[in-house]
Amino acid sequence: RNEYDILAFTFSKFRIKHIFLYPPNTRAGYHSESKAKEYKHVCKRACQRAVDRLKAGALAVDAVTAALVELEDSPFTNAGMGSNLNLSGEIECDASIMDGKSLHYGAVGAVSGINNPVLVANRLLSEAQKGKLSAGRIPPCFLVGRGAHDWAVSHGIPPCPSEKMATKFSLSAYKRNKHKMELAEKVETGFNHHSKKRRQASETENGSGLLDTVGAIVVDREGNVAAAVSSGGLAMKHPGRVGQAAHHGCGCWAENTSTLNPYSTAVSTSGCGEHLIRTMLARECSSAMQCEDAHQALLEAMQNKFISSPFLASEDCVLGGVIVLRCCRYSDAQPSADIQAILVEFLWSHTTESMCVGYMSAQDGKAKTHISRLPPGAVAGQSLAIEGGVCRLVSTVTTVD
Amino acid sequence: RNEYDILAFTFSKFRIKHIFLYPPNTRAGYHSESKAKEYKHVCKRACQRAVDRLKAGALAVDAVTAALVELEDSPFTNAGMGSNLNLSGEIECDASIMDGKSLHYGAVGAVSGINNPVLVANRLLSEAQKGKLSAGRIPPCFLVGRGAHDWAVSHGIPPCPSEKMATKFSLSAYKRNKHKMELAEKVETGFNHHSKKRRQASETENGSGLLDTVGAIVVDREGNVAAAVSSGGLAMKHPGRVGQAAHHGCGCWAENTSTLNPYSTAVSTSGCGEHLIRTMLARECSSAMQCEDAHQALLEAMQNKFISSPFLASEDCVLGGVIVLRCCRYSDAQPSADIQAILVEFLWSHTTESMCVGYMSAQDGKAKTHISRLPPGAVAGQSLAIEGGVCRLVSTVTTVD
Repeated sequence: RNEYDILAFTFSKFRIKHIFLYPPNTRAGYHSESKAKEYKHVCKRACQRAVDRLKAGALAVDAVTAALVELEDSPFTNAGMGSNLNLSGEIECDASIMDGKSLHYGAVGAVSGINNPVLVANRLLSEAQKGKLSAGRIPPCFLVGRGAHDWAVSHGIPPCPSEKMATKFSLSAYKRNKHKMELAEKVETGFNHHSKKRRQASETENGSGLLDTVGAIVVDREGNVAAAVSSGGLAMKHPGRVGQAAHHGCGCWAENTSTLNPYSTAVSTSGCGEHLIRTMLARECSSAMQCEDAHQALLEAMQNKFISSPFLASEDCVLGGVIVLRCCRYSDAQPSADIQAILVEFLWSHTTESMCVGYMSAQDGKAKTHISRLPPGAVAGQSLAIEGGVCRLVSTVTTVD
Repeated sequence: RNEYDILAFTFSKFRIKHIFLYPPNTRAGYHSESKAKEYKHVCKRACQRAVDRLKAGALAVDAVTAALVELEDSPFTNAGMGSNLNLSGEIECDASIMDGKSLHYGAVGAVSGINNPVLVANRLLSEAQKGKLSAGRIPPCFLVGRGAHDWAVSHGIPPCPSEKMATKFSLSAYKRNKHKMELAEKVETGFNHHSKKRRQASETENGSGLLDTVGAIVVDREGNVAAAVSSGGLAMKHPGRVGQAAHHGCGCWAENTSTLNPYSTAVSTSGCGEHLIRTMLARECSSAMQCEDAHQALLEAMQNKFISSPFLASEDCVLGGVIVLRCCRYSDAQPSADIQAILVEFLWSHTTESMCVGYMSAQDGKAKTHISRLPPGAVAGQSLAIEGGVCRLVSTVTTVD
């Protein structure tokens, strides 16, 4: 049988580093710079974790989960530990995962008191694959709130007291945001009590780098793809608000190659949840990736299905980012019959000021990281950056009689 | 200016009447028959409500909401009042709405203590259309659980004590289901404690007709389309489980005609939430409807994107139903320059044993209702029924100087 013994490839951790709600001349820039190093570090660790799992024989869906756990555990990311606080000062997380092999999907929304929401999403996915529950009941693929928490705990996922998930940083950001909101509302009421136009006197900060979702995409040695995403959501969001990270087709997408699809594709998205939900960006990018020219296809998808999407016609600032992976068997010019190769293209694109990306294959000693930025003068929310690379991963063919 | 003064058209209320979890030779058949009359009645009332609103000048999105309120208020439907109880004996509802004009969407998931979840979805949609909240915050389009409840109440939607939403019927169904589950779990444990295969000794009933989601689609006098859906979810679902009715692209879809789309389309779906989420059936049907032959397009969508969907490869019984509406200006053979017409095609299809459909235009004195059934011998979950009609709605052109 054929097996890619070094086909581990991971493309983990991507985050928007600059936050659009900050005017560019505030301390946000400073914060971002000081955090760039930390972002790159956690990104590397996440890649390493996924590759370790892949080397140990794990499938893509488990490797992508391992990467997400590392990202969630970092207090610097807006996912799991260190998530943004909502309007009531609570942490409520969204996460989802998709397996390109079974095409199953699992998601949790607005779940509190769970350190690693991606573990719940992963468990929902694997439980659903086992078939029906007792008395013929259909297993859930999407759980929210208290019910999600209780399901997780009853399935052995440890709860975490909410106060342990908040950081000094997220708490002080909450206090500042609360103050800004109160000021803004006073100003709005004062200016014109009956005005229908909502003023934006002072915008909430989403923390320094705390808007951003974390995500990862993976292809394993069998060529299976998987994608996952996790987010603490927007700062000062309404309790119960669910963003793209829990929404099927919006936060992540993974589909193995099939008779209909020449390529296996995996996508994870970040940015403003409401924009990503209304455009279903993950699925749109995935299906665009079936075109021949990956770079052109992603460019057009980001332009036509996101920035200029008819679903966001009323928005003048459309913020998001994607990481995309596609792969296919590579049959040309094989050096020998014993060796097979897979061609992996990985791309990223964003309309936010910047995005941190990391990637690694099992061939690499360590992960590469990169902070991608919009070109100088480009306007966030209206312009985009797009980059990527191609990687040929070689395997030896093992024949088992 | 041109205005269609009799272009009110509604296509409301559709429900699966026979429930797949019942073997065909149980009392379910009897129940369904006895309830058919009630289903038709509530269906007619919902159509009438929407048409009344349209005649009063309401847009599609408000008319579709009015239809849904009527459907939710019926104790016989599994939506709002009379919803299925979950595993803990509580009612948690899902609902969503989409406006084909603005392409905005609003949804609530797993919300308790709200009699008319569609009102919350509608309010989320209209609030989002007003633009940003104080301090530049982005308004939510999807709220769940307690947070959704509190948001609704703070926006003037009256709460309803949960005990008032349960009916004698839903409570006794809960007790029977609970008993069946306990029996089933005893049998499973007794037979083979370590068996990985889950047995289906005795399936839960979803009540007599209580599986089914209610939905409606509407086109208004300006040609705008809207779609909405509401559901109490599966009987004995896990608390926090969210089904297709709250899921963007899965429960309903509406898109006005545009440069890209020759037709305006509206879709609402019913059936097993998990199947409808994984296939994103509402959006799939909507985009299929852009093909010339509506009947053929819907047939192929139901076959290829649902029954034989690669996303449901592991399922041998795929249960759902859709109502679909598409319309375009009708310019041929106008009797006079003062009169314009719109061509409306409405279709329904289902893989469940039966589905109740109602429809009405403002030209009609009362709604028509129909209980659609699979042909004799067809297997629910593997075969489908498809029907529909075409309707030319005429308007007089009013010139305002």
